[in-house]
Amino acid sequence: MDNKVVARKAKVITCKAAVARAPGQPLSIEEVQVDPPRWTEVRVRIHFTSICHTDLSAWKGENEAQRAYPRILGHEASGVIESIGGGVTDLEEGDHVVPIFHGECGDCDYCRRPDTNMCPKFGANPMKKTMTSDGKVRFWSKDRTEPIYHFLNTSTFSEYTVIDSSCVVKIDPNFPLKKMSLLSCGVSTGVGAVWITADVQAGEKVAIFGLGAVGLAAAAGAKARGASQIIGVDVNPEKFIKGKVAGITDFINPKELLTPVHKVIQKLTGGGGVDYSFECSGDLLALREAFLSTQMGWGLTLLLGVHTKPDTLPIHPMELFNGQRLVGCVFGGFKGKTQLSDFAAQCVQGAVDLDQFVTHELPFERINEALQLLKDGKSLRCVLSL
Amino acid sequence: MDNKVVARKAKVITCKAAVARAPGQPLSIEEVQVDPPRWTEVRVRIHFTSICHTDLSAWKGENEAQRAYPRILGHEASGVIESIGGGVTDLEEGDHVVPIFHGECGDCDYCRRPDTNMCPKFGANPMKKTMTSDGKVRFWSKDRTEPIYHFLNTSTFSEYTVIDSSCVVKIDPNFPLKKMSLLSCGVSTGVGAVWITADVQAGEKVAIFGLGAVGLAAAAGAKARGASQIIGVDVNPEKFIKGKVAGITDFINPKELLTPVHKVIQKLTGGGGVDYSFECSGDLLALREAFLSTQMGWGLTLLLGVHTKPDTLPIHPMELFNGQRLVGCVFGGFKGKTQLSDFAAQCVQGAVDLDQFVTHELPFERINEALQLLKDGKSLRCVLSL
Repeated sequence: MDNKVVARKAKVITCKAAVARAPGQPLSIEEVQVDPPRWTEVRVRIHFTSICHTDLSAWKGENEAQRAYPRILGHEASGVIESIGGGVTDLEEGDHVVPIFHGECGDCDYCRRPDTNMCPKFGANPMKKTMTSDGKVRFWSKDRTEPIYHFLNTSTFSEYTVIDSSCVVKIDPNFPLKKMSLLSCGVSTGVGAVWITADVQAGEKVAIFGLGAVGLAAAAGAKARGASQIIGVDVNPEKFIKGKVAGITDFINPKELLTPVHKVIQKLTGGGGVDYSFECSGDLLALREAFLSTQMGWGLTLLLGVHTKPDTLPIHPMELFNGQRLVGCVFGGFKGKTQLSDFAAQCVQGAVDLDQFVTHELPFERINEALQLLKDGKSLRCVLSL
Repeated sequence: MDNKVVARKAKVITCKAAVARAPGQPLSIEEVQVDPPRWTEVRVRIHFTSICHTDLSAWKGENEAQRAYPRILGHEASGVIESIGGGVTDLEEGDHVVPIFHGECGDCDYCRRPDTNMCPKFGANPMKKTMTSDGKVRFWSKDRTEPIYHFLNTSTFSEYTVIDSSCVVKIDPNFPLKKMSLLSCGVSTGVGAVWITADVQAGEKVAIFGLGAVGLAAAAGAKARGASQIIGVDVNPEKFIKGKVAGITDFINPKELLTPVHKVIQKLTGGGGVDYSFECSGDLLALREAFLSTQMGWGLTLLLGVHTKPDTLPIHPMELFNGQRLVGCVFGGFKGKTQLSDFAAQCVQGAVDLDQFVTHELPFERINEALQLLKDGKSLRCVLSL
């Protein structure tokens, strides 16, 4: 055993989890064993979890190199700390918490800089399938013969999960726990991209490509900042109803156009294009249009969508000489441990209405229906109660 | 005639120029007619001109869409104003000046912003072959039967040239005119990229890919800023002698390596890579290595080299999610009219030693030898005297 301290009192728990056993196969609701938290870890009783496209992609096994079975997926959730391991100083049993897939150790060269949230130790890593501290799992089959892999530092499709304290954020116990699940990934990613990475100012113009939960959260973030124009682009016109609520001022359905999207956006903005494009679709053609839609001289395209194909950026190097820039953005640029509890408070105070993102609610046992709703583009977020 | 005012007193001048008449053919030293400057224009007696890779590329006709013959190339120079057109308020006859290919009108939305030097009216535009004011030429064959095209707002391979005042910077008449020619493009591009676009701070680490005049100027700029490590990459080991003078601390010749350059740079920097990569070679493989050589989280790759091939960026979208960024950089980010005369003063005061960039000097008539020297990688800058 290479662990320094085993958690006080805590024992192995047997509980229900949704286990991924093969690419694209229905998740299997099973009884699993969850080990006690070890050094710097906590064990969380998950109360709510929701599903994000990254879960969907992992469930489908789109990236073969990232496949690992059996595995407990899920990274958007909220819950209460059941027990803590040794060395945890900022969290206690009973704390209301939100797990974050993109953690913050607080102590490395990256965490100490103000301009990055890329903690190498606890940053999002889809290849990682075990705990960071010892490279081992905390999940087992009920008979303990089979280890079950972790996912994105969190593995929230389980009644109980073990997470390193660097990937758990304490929130005010008075905040509604159900909505807080949305801050674990999608909403924070969209709003953070606008508030932190882009730092959109009042009067600026933005375009959003892909109106899923992340795109709509970006719209809501831009609205909160007083953006003068929020242009939404999606091939699914059903998204436009939700989009209007989120603050989108102009809609473009590329399927209805004979001209490229960026030409329409240039026209809508009076010629110059938008100050910021948010690419939330994971589609390379959309990425190119997003880039071309930005202002020469200072336009910034933020990549939020996950690109699973091997194709490289469809942009010629000389096109960067117009002063248009591209940046990738993980978790919206949020330093989760430092900034997320404040963001939760801002949401509760009304800066961003979280209710608009919850389109469906189901009991945890019906998680496969929730996966299908997201896959079919019918839900933004389906919140599952455990 | 759509011009508002024709220059006071000034008459047509007949003088010598080096005319490009076909791709890759020797420039033809001919007598040409140079019209008087029109509204907002000045006519400059060129004293010195040097040759940059953009001239070389245009001379070869590498980009077919940009070809235009006959044409007077050249954009690095210094000289004295011979006459001024109407509406010119900031320049006078007799002023010592440096032409800038990337001008600044001072009055547009772009010029009024602090964060861009992309003036749409006078910014570098290799497609433009006539004057901005009236879309006509000021150069003619000696018998005035044949119009001769302009190049990059400047056309300095001529004893006299007409330039819009937005593309002419006044410098202190006490400054040595010969060296000032270097500030027209190459040295300003390299140093500006470090000082303005990247804003390198003391103690930061940089890598420079391609050690021509621009790359060495970037090295000199990084040295002036107190960079702790300045890594130079070039396939030509002869560049390393000059590189040492410019401030390069570590050399890498990719031809001598079995591992990728970025792995060597990671090792040289203690694991993390450089804070900034300057890509001055115009080679896509170098661009990728430059990008991979930067620090996760905040590394910035600046594109300075001209890419003439149709290939797009060899970077996967997900690679941007590590927080490494790419930006294009024209004229180093300098707002020429506003900032270049101060930069000239800083060079004269010793911040950057300009002498190191002048490897050859020839009379103007031997311009074809100078082209060859640059093409063969034997010169940094050959300054031609007119």
